[in-house]
Amino acid sequence: MKKTDIHELRKDPLLGRWIAVLSQPKAPSDYLLSRNGEAEDSCIMCAGREKETPAEIMSVPRLHTDGSAKGWWTRVIPNFSPVFQVEGDLGRRGEGMYDKMNSIGANEVIIESPDHSLRPEDMGLEQMKRVLRTYRARMADLEKDPRLRYTLIYKNSGKDAGALYSHSISHLASTPVIPKRVKEELDGAKQYFAYKERCLFCDILREELRVGSRVILETGHFVAFCPYASKFPFESWIVPKRHHCAFQDVTEEEIEDMALILSSILKKLRTAFDGLPFNYFIHSAPNRIPRKDHWHTLGDDFHWHLEIMPRLLKTSGFEWGSGFYILPTSPEYASKYLREVS
Amino acid sequence: MKKTDIHELRKDPLLGRWIAVLSQPKAPSDYLLSRNGEAEDSCIMCAGREKETPAEIMSVPRLHTDGSAKGWWTRVIPNFSPVFQVEGDLGRRGEGMYDKMNSIGANEVIIESPDHSLRPEDMGLEQMKRVLRTYRARMADLEKDPRLRYTLIYKNSGKDAGALYSHSISHLASTPVIPKRVKEELDGAKQYFAYKERCLFCDILREELRVGSRVILETGHFVAFCPYASKFPFESWIVPKRHHCAFQDVTEEEIEDMALILSSILKKLRTAFDGLPFNYFIHSAPNRIPRKDHWHTLGDDFHWHLEIMPRLLKTSGFEWGSGFYILPTSPEYASKYLREVS
Repeated sequence: MKKTDIHELRKDPLLGRWIAVLSQPKAPSDYLLSRNGEAEDSCIMCAGREKETPAEIMSVPRLHTDGSAKGWWTRVIPNFSPVFQVEGDLGRRGEGMYDKMNSIGANEVIIESPDHSLRPEDMGLEQMKRVLRTYRARMADLEKDPRLRYTLIYKNSGKDAGALYSHSISHLASTPVIPKRVKEELDGAKQYFAYKERCLFCDILREELRVGSRVILETGHFVAFCPYASKFPFESWIVPKRHHCAFQDVTEEEIEDMALILSSILKKLRTAFDGLPFNYFIHSAPNRIPRKDHWHTLGDDFHWHLEIMPRLLKTSGFEWGSGFYILPTSPEYASKYLREVS
Repeated sequence: MKKTDIHELRKDPLLGRWIAVLSQPKAPSDYLLSRNGEAEDSCIMCAGREKETPAEIMSVPRLHTDGSAKGWWTRVIPNFSPVFQVEGDLGRRGEGMYDKMNSIGANEVIIESPDHSLRPEDMGLEQMKRVLRTYRARMADLEKDPRLRYTLIYKNSGKDAGALYSHSISHLASTPVIPKRVKEELDGAKQYFAYKERCLFCDILREELRVGSRVILETGHFVAFCPYASKFPFESWIVPKRHHCAFQDVTEEEIEDMALILSSILKKLRTAFDGLPFNYFIHSAPNRIPRKDHWHTLGDDFHWHLEIMPRLLKTSGFEWGSGFYILPTSPEYASKYLREVS
C-alpha cells in the first residue's frame, strides 16, 4: 500500500539517528515565506471553529451543572500536516548502503484550552490537571499500537522555540523507532543501574534534596530543580519522587501535585523573563504493552520526568559541532533566582 | 593554582555530556541586553586596530614585493572571554555524586581577513587557502599539549547562527575531553569498521559517486554532497577522497582543492538563500601526539571532513526532546538545486 506521498524515515549511518524526509520537498523560496504574526485574536484551535479542524481524536467535555454538554476543556486533533502517518506498514528496506522505512506513527495536537489567549501558567490548577490527564490518556491509547515504539509529548512556546500558533497547544509524536536522545537516556540510566544497583534519577533526587542548592520547589510527590549539568540556562526538571518508568501510569494524586509544580515553575520563569520562548517535553519509557517480554526489566532502571528548556541562547557551531554546551548561568544561581521569585 | 574565577566543566550523569559552567553567573536581565547591530563599518578585528586585541597568537603576514612587511592576511588571537582557559591543571574531582574539572583548554579567534566587509565566499581562492592553512597550523600546534584531547574549528555566520560579529571570523576550541558529538562519530565509524573492515566515509563516498543524486560538486581531492540522512535542509558535507583521520595532515595540493570546493559551496548557498545564517565545523580525530599508543589504530576507522549546516529552521521541543529531525527538503532535491545554481 505504498502511497506516492508517504514520508520516509532514513537512518544516519554514522550516528544511528533517524530523520524524517518529507515527500514534497520545500524549495529555497518556501523558507522565505514569513509565518503569520502572533497578533490574531482567534484561530482554528479556538472554541467555535471545531468543524474546520481534522476529525477530533478525543476531548475532555465541559458540562453544565445539569450534566448536559457545553463545549470542551481540552481537545485532541490530528496534526494538519502529519510527519508520522497512521495508515500503512513500516516497510523497512535498504537503499544502496543506507536504511529506510515508511514514516508510520502519530502526530497529534493537544489544544490546552478553548480560549485563544489563555497562557498555560494562567489557566489554573483545574485546567492544568485536565491537560495532564489528556496527555496520559493519549499516551496510554497509543501504547497499544504494536508498530509504535515511542510517544513524545512536547510543547513549543514562542516563535523562537518553534511554535507556529499563539494558541496554547502541546504536541504528540509517536514514532516507530526509539528516538536517539531517548535511547541515550535509557542507556545512561541502564549503565548507572548496572554499576550501582540503584536508579540514577532516585539518586539524583536524594542528592538534590540533601544539597538543596539546585532545588526550586518540592511538593509531596515531585521535586523541581535545575540539573547539575544543565544544557541551557534556567533549564528546570520536574521529577516524580515515586520511582516509575512511564508517565501514563501517573496517579490522580500525582496529577494534582504535578499541575501545581508545573504551573508554579512556568509562572516563575515568566516572572524572570517576560515572553520567554521555551520548550518542555516528557521523557517516559518506550511503549511496553506490545513488547512486555523485551521491556520487563525496564521499570528498574528508568524514571519518567519532564524537562523545561528556556530558549535564551542561539546555539552556535560550537554546540552543533561538539555536543558540548556552555552555561552562562550556573544551576545554583538559576534555582536560587527561581526559588525566590513568586 | 585554583583561581576563584576559573570556569568549571561538569559531566551530565545521564548522557555523559560535558558542559562548561561560567564562573560569573549571568542574571535574567543580562540576557535581555540586545547585541550590537550588524551595521558597523569596522570593528576590533579590522586591520589597524591590532593593539586593542589580546596578544596575537599567530598571523599570516602580508608582504610587499620586496619582502618587507605590509600587515597581515589572517590573524589568530585569544578569545576575549575564553570559556576554556590555557593556564592551570585539570583538577578532576567529585562534587557529591557528580563529576567535574577545571575548564582548561584553548579558545581562539581566527580573523579570516583584515577587511571588515569581505564575506568568505568573496575572498577568493588565495585568501581561502590562507585561512585553511591557518586552521591547519593552529590544530597542529595545539595537538602537542597533553592536557588537550580535542580541537574543534568552527564558524558562525549570521546572528541566528550564533555570530556576535559581522567581521568574517572562525573559532577554535580545544577541550580536555572528547566532546560527545565527536565521540559518537568516532564510535559509529569504529563500529562500522569492525563489522565491514572498511571505512564508513570511504564507503559513503563510493556510494554517493555511484548514485550521483546527492553530489553537489566533485574535485580531484574532494566530494561535496548532501548527506542521505541530513539533519537540516541543504546541509552539505565536504569529504576528502584520501582516507585520513586528521585535518592537520592535509597536503598543500588538498588545500588548493578544498579552498575551491568550500568557496563554491558557500557561493551556491548564498545564491539559494541571500544572507543565510550557517555554521560549519571540521570533524577530525582527537589529538594523537600525546596519546600515540592509545590512538594508534585510529587512522583506520575515522576520516576527517567538514560539515556545513544552514540554519533555516528553528529547532523545536520535538528535536530537543527526541534527537529526531524533520527534513522538509530531501538531500536529492537540495543537491540538485545547489548543483544547478552557479
